[in-house]
Amino acid sequence: MSKEGKVRQKMRELAASLAEAGIDVEAVKATLKTMEIEVPSWAFADSGTRFKVFRQAGAARDIFQKIDDAACVHKLTGITPSIAVHVLWDFAGAKAEDVAAYARSAGVRIGAVNPTLFDRDEYRFGSLANPDPAVRKTAIAHVLESIDIMRKVESTRLSLWLADGTNYPGQDDLVARKHRLAEGLKAIHKAMDDDMRLLLEYKFFEPAFYATDVPDWGAAYVLARSAGPKASVLVDLGHHAHGTNVEQIVAFLIDEGMLGGFHLNSRKYADDDLTTGSMDPYELFLIFNELVAAGRGTRLYDTAYMIDQSHNLKPNVEAMIQSVAAIQEIAAKALCVDRRSLREAQQRCDAVAAEEVLRQAFFTDVRPLLAAVREESGVAADPIEAYRASGYQQTIERQRCGEVMR
Amino acid sequence: MSKEGKVRQKMRELAASLAEAGIDVEAVKATLKTMEIEVPSWAFADSGTRFKVFRQAGAARDIFQKIDDAACVHKLTGITPSIAVHVLWDFAGAKAEDVAAYARSAGVRIGAVNPTLFDRDEYRFGSLANPDPAVRKTAIAHVLESIDIMRKVESTRLSLWLADGTNYPGQDDLVARKHRLAEGLKAIHKAMDDDMRLLLEYKFFEPAFYATDVPDWGAAYVLARSAGPKASVLVDLGHHAHGTNVEQIVAFLIDEGMLGGFHLNSRKYADDDLTTGSMDPYELFLIFNELVAAGRGTRLYDTAYMIDQSHNLKPNVEAMIQSVAAIQEIAAKALCVDRRSLREAQQRCDAVAAEEVLRQAFFTDVRPLLAAVREESGVAADPIEAYRASGYQQTIERQRCGEVMR
Amino acid sequence: MSKEGKVRQKMRELAASLAEAGIDVEAVKATLKTMEIEVPSWAFADSGTRFKVFRQAGAARDIFQKIDDAACVHKLTGITPSIAVHVLWDFAGAKAEDVAAYARSAGVRIGAVNPTLFDRDEYRFGSLANPDPAVRKTAIAHVLESIDIMRKVESTRLSLWLADGTNYPGQDDLVARKHRLAEGLKAIHKAMDDDMRLLLEYKFFEPAFYATDVPDWGAAYVLARSAGPKASVLVDLGHHAHGTNVEQIVAFLIDEGMLGGFHLNSRKYADDDLTTGSMDPYELFLIFNELVAAGRGTRLYDTAYMIDQSHNLKPNVEAMIQSVAAIQEIAAKALCVDRRSLREAQQRCDAVAAEEVLRQAFFTDVRPLLAAVREESGVAADPIEAYRASGYQQTIERQRCGEVMR
Amino acid sequence: MSKEGKVRQKMRELAASLAEAGIDVEAVKATLKTMEIEVPSWAFADSGTRFKVFRQAGAARDIFQKIDDAACVHKLTGITPSIAVHVLWDFAGAKAEDVAAYARSAGVRIGAVNPTLFDRDEYRFGSLANPDPAVRKTAIAHVLESIDIMRKVESTRLSLWLADGTNYPGQDDLVARKHRLAEGLKAIHKAMDDDMRLLLEYKFFEPAFYATDVPDWGAAYVLARSAGPKASVLVDLGHHAHGTNVEQIVAFLIDEGMLGGFHLNSRKYADDDLTTGSMDPYELFLIFNELVAAGRGTRLYDTAYMIDQSHNLKPNVEAMIQSVAAIQEIAAKALCVDRRSLREAQQRCDAVAAEEVLRQAFFTDVRPLLAAVREESGVAADPIEAYRASGYQQTIERQRCGEVMR
Repeated sequence: MSKEGKVRQKMRELAASLAEAGIDVEAVKATLKTMEIEVPSWAFADSGTRFKVFRQAGAARDIFQKIDDAACVHKLTGITPSIAVHVLWDFAGAKAEDVAAYARSAGVRIGAVNPTLFDRDEYRFGSLANPDPAVRKTAIAHVLESIDIMRKVESTRLSLWLADGTNYPGQDDLVARKHRLAEGLKAIHKAMDDDMRLLLEYKFFEPAFYATDVPDWGAAYVLARSAGPKASVLVDLGHHAHGTNVEQIVAFLIDEGMLGGFHLNSRKYADDDLTTGSMDPYELFLIFNELVAAGRGTRLYDTAYMIDQSHNLKPNVEAMIQSVAAIQEIAAKALCVDRRSLREAQQRCDAVAAEEVLRQAFFTDVRPLLAAVREESGVAADPIEAYRASGYQQTIERQRCGEVMR
Repeated sequence: MSKEGKVRQKMRELAASLAEAGIDVEAVKATLKTMEIEVPSWAFADSGTRFKVFRQAGAARDIFQKIDDAACVHKLTGITPSIAVHVLWDFAGAKAEDVAAYARSAGVRIGAVNPTLFDRDEYRFGSLANPDPAVRKTAIAHVLESIDIMRKVESTRLSLWLADGTNYPGQDDLVARKHRLAEGLKAIHKAMDDDMRLLLEYKFFEPAFYATDVPDWGAAYVLARSAGPKASVLVDLGHHAHGTNVEQIVAFLIDEGMLGGFHLNSRKYADDDLTTGSMDPYELFLIFNELVAAGRGTRLYDTAYMIDQSHNLKPNVEAMIQSVAAIQEIAAKALCVDRRSLREAQQRCDAVAAEEVLRQAFFTDVRPLLAAVREESGVAADPIEAYRASGYQQTIERQRCGEVMR
Repeated sequence: MSKEGKVRQKMRELAASLAEAGIDVEAVKATLKTMEIEVPSWAFADSGTRFKVFRQAGAARDIFQKIDDAACVHKLTGITPSIAVHVLWDFAGAKAEDVAAYARSAGVRIGAVNPTLFDRDEYRFGSLANPDPAVRKTAIAHVLESIDIMRKVESTRLSLWLADGTNYPGQDDLVARKHRLAEGLKAIHKAMDDDMRLLLEYKFFEPAFYATDVPDWGAAYVLARSAGPKASVLVDLGHHAHGTNVEQIVAFLIDEGMLGGFHLNSRKYADDDLTTGSMDPYELFLIFNELVAAGRGTRLYDTAYMIDQSHNLKPNVEAMIQSVAAIQEIAAKALCVDRRSLREAQQRCDAVAAEEVLRQAFFTDVRPLLAAVREESGVAADPIEAYRASGYQQTIERQRCGEVMR
Repeated sequence: MSKEGKVRQKMRELAASLAEAGIDVEAVKATLKTMEIEVPSWAFADSGTRFKVFRQAGAARDIFQKIDDAACVHKLTGITPSIAVHVLWDFAGAKAEDVAAYARSAGVRIGAVNPTLFDRDEYRFGSLANPDPAVRKTAIAHVLESIDIMRKVESTRLSLWLADGTNYPGQDDLVARKHRLAEGLKAIHKAMDDDMRLLLEYKFFEPAFYATDVPDWGAAYVLARSAGPKASVLVDLGHHAHGTNVEQIVAFLIDEGMLGGFHLNSRKYADDDLTTGSMDPYELFLIFNELVAAGRGTRLYDTAYMIDQSHNLKPNVEAMIQSVAAIQEIAAKALCVDRRSLREAQQRCDAVAAEEVLRQAFFTDVRPLLAAVREESGVAADPIEAYRASGYQQTIERQRCGEVMR
């Protein structure tokens, strides 16, 4: 049998076994074809740690090259039609309309707009929570400018991460900072159009090392609620204390109608920003299991799926493709959960059987399913292999030589 | 000079230096005299780990002996006028009215009432969040019974810790559990009198090892809000992930009007339930710093200060006295913070000076202040020493021999 | 095609694809058939947390019933021929020779002997590191008695976990404790026969909450080295700080010739003692990847594979079967790693390709392989299903009613 | 009474109470006068996080300015006679002999020499553990060059921190990396003079996010032992997993004769590099308690006390002075421990009394003692205040304007 024939036969077998579990394989395929993952512009530029930013041959030097890279990822995977942008990094030297037009011509669109509220000396002691009213004013002005860019690039998502916090006990009044922050968020919320959404990100620590102003989902929830109905919570998978049950937070926020979206990545220690799925893929599966459960078993819960990674040791474009493929594979596994059997096991408090339902789905070989989906979508069966064969990497390494800028 | 004379002279010196910092030493003393810390009945009985409960000579065998111990602590420290009770452990063999009367006669009163929602086989898969409606009904009935005990013992605080959670992915539906829990809390809230308060405790993990149903302050906040205005959040100092900034949570909850009280203890690893102040006393100081700040610099924020410890390797009564003294000492230090200088340093973003204000207060020798307060309150200058001299320990070891019950 | 036919065809396909990667499928099968996992006697008795030990219908009441359960697991899985014992719990009421004979007649043998150095009041302040020489003497005597039991039951592994440690700074002299412990270990080592092995277990915390005397692999390594050549390090998968790279410790110990064996289980928070593979199965795979690498790609490194779990919410025997099956599945995946491709990717610093080799093996559906191995070994294809169908659980629940003892 | 008179009277009182506890106050003073803390050159330059390096007015631009700052700290505190250097940052544009001469003329000397094995593109996949032999050769050559600098600046301490590690499972062979590293360390050890010491630092994570090649004290211990007798372990206070008992590691290493020195700093989350003593000063006290115990109660254990901090939000020189003062204060407290009472309490397993001995010392107001020591040493009574009054900061801010280099 030919390789293609074998894959098709495996797909038929998988479809049959899913059908036995009451899973509509066509619905699963439709979900996998139409799921959308957003890639971040900054992941195509150089990145690193505080010790060293390793220069990467072929790293994107401006927003147009980043769009080229995003378009390449979309062409090969078919499920990354948008690119998130960081205002200071991407629009300092480019007009918003031009960026949007360039993206359209490249086959993608501009996604979430991220104000850059940390990369200036004036933000040393914070942005929206800075003790100095003048700095807070500057920060808000930057966000309002970002909202203006949103209009120009037709984006509806304002993705707000604040580096605000303090490094030492006593450095600032924790309650006063909360009030300043809440006030700033209200001003921002007020300036947003009705169809816009404010996604407020929380983070356990870094760059603040004593008290981060939005340290956990609870703080983000309360602050988003007080800002107004357009605001909700952004979950970055690397922004939790060790041991935190992230899937439970996701389920809780969905149930409260307060999940605004994700920054997808992986971590073993802190906010390591590793490629998604590289550490504890079962946790990622359990998160997607909640998203599929909230999508009634056949769809993914409708929220913003955005990648946020730092590719210190992997080539940027390839690392992004690997991540997108890993997310799609995990989503496919979550869509293969036999929810009827799961519910029945839960109802009889049969922890062994319930867990085995999840493990069965997690360890199902969904590659035939992904192959079918990709074939029907007209994209590469193995996107990493296709990227390596495409010559794109060689081209950008050749074209983007010289001093790399961010 | 006599020892007393020396202490008085040191007190005069301390008062002078506090006065220079604009601190009203008489107000500080008044706060230290009138602060109230609640001791838990169960800390006078035997406790241990899952590996071994070491039998302690003199451990209390019933609620009346526990009240005797609490009264002893109060007599020596002057600031522990109430004792928290655990319904199943304390009222199984005793009538509520008799317990209350006994406490009154011993010079203390019954404080927070803790329903016991984990110590029966039926709670294997949860109490309020149990998949089985019959178990949920039993659990709620037990809480309603606890509320009835509250009326009989004239307590206004219902302190609710739930051991509910799951050990394995898939074991139960996380959202369904949240709904059941919210429903139970509403039923409980409805049954409470207007002057009663429901304190909902959160815990990172243990005894649940996959998903605890109230895992963090955010979940407790949302659930308490949905239960009704009598509900707020109970902060146990040992119930957080490593690294969590607890003083920030405390400040946040106070600002939201949602801090219901504390379970005071210490920990290095998990919920170790060590004696308060034994690990990282600076963190305890920073928490009390927020409580004093919320009390406008001279008082402690009005909330429930309750100890919850497990004295595996220390004699129960003495460990309790040590803890109460440690808390009072830390509170005294927090009352010695020069808030004017702190505010000024904060306003000019002078992290070094601001931190030094806190460190100055933390390392101030407040023992003369405590000695003065204790002398004026008519209690022992050194409560641990006084306990050792009292013969109480020898008496209970003699009287309470034989099989120890919980 | 019949179900069996389908499985066989899948096995042929898998064999073909493994062969392409240079993997000898018959060698893999031979390893999977002959691998041995030891089950612990105590996991068949009741267990729980410090809050509650939930009584389980059918829990084993003595060592003979525990052996029955172990034999049942072995019969269904074919790879658990031995049972570890805990001296105080298992030999208090039974003669060692009788236990060994009973095990033999049941088709299993006695494995590691665990002295019980924590379950007596005298061990309140430690066993081998206790400040009191009399207690240390008692502890050593107990271990010598355990060594005598080893001879009687023909065991060669002395598995030593010490609950020793302190709860408070100052409680004892850390260096003095180290010296006492080293001295005790030397005495024990000296008493052991030449073919015996001393496995020294380390643990991050619990039941000690300030300083555990053997807190990490480094301490166990140094102490084992100083004890003598028969001593090495026991790795319990749940005994590490959050974030610890366990597979790296395993690789390091193997390279030093100091890996004595494993206590297999899972955890999300602390020493949760969940069933193996239930949390982060990829981490377990990475550990087995090192064990297979050390076994030159086709065998598992020769060491003691012992389970140590606490089945608070799962039926004991079934939970054990589930764990054994999970371990075997992960071992199978680790045996499917294409080591040649991995090495090549490593040599060219190709992190993406190297990682994909591991992910490919991890997500390979090895169930056909396990089915083949089990069929050829004459055991059940699906051991959990077979257990449920066997009626064993119903029998023990009926026969073991009445008061359950440990 | 004059302020000076009051301080002297307090000193007399403190001396009397210490004498009661059998503590020789003159010996304590002698220790405090002669203790030596080394400051790092890089802490006087700009630093930051991966998100932003905030430029600090007055940051040192080259090794000579760093020496000026170190000399200023030494002048004000009297206990920082040496400055650690980082080879690539400090000797790229300066001759070693010139640097040493400049230091001497400024009143300080060059301390530990730190090879810079991470700040070049070629170290992307490691230095001593790099898969590429050419890179390993370069790395070793750099260390040999560093050893040559040691000779020229008359330093005897080679302080080796390796950023080596991997970010993804599979990226490299963990055992092969261990072997390469061990080989490199042996080559380095061999090249060192007999009076030189190799201090090998371990780190939990960062910049490696999967497996750091020297992740814990155990690995550093084993690798140092295998390198040779001149090698020992460097403990950085911020390089541990959460919850790790650092004082126990220190005590263990001292007892093994393997403690080579410290990198002093504070942290709440990861390797935050905050100023020493700012987080959990009681932990720092407990570490110094072990160092004083190893110094027989009156001296500090003879090892390298080096600061390693990152002053993101505090002025560099002032932050350093604050840290030195904080360390001296904690050392003073550790020297005030009543070791006789401690030992007696330990011998009777009296955890309460033993702990109170430590707490008594920790909360002793040692400022009169420090004032006396500083007066007798001819340095400022309050070094932070003296720095602020000195005008040094204004001068460097004025003189060092323009582009700041590292």
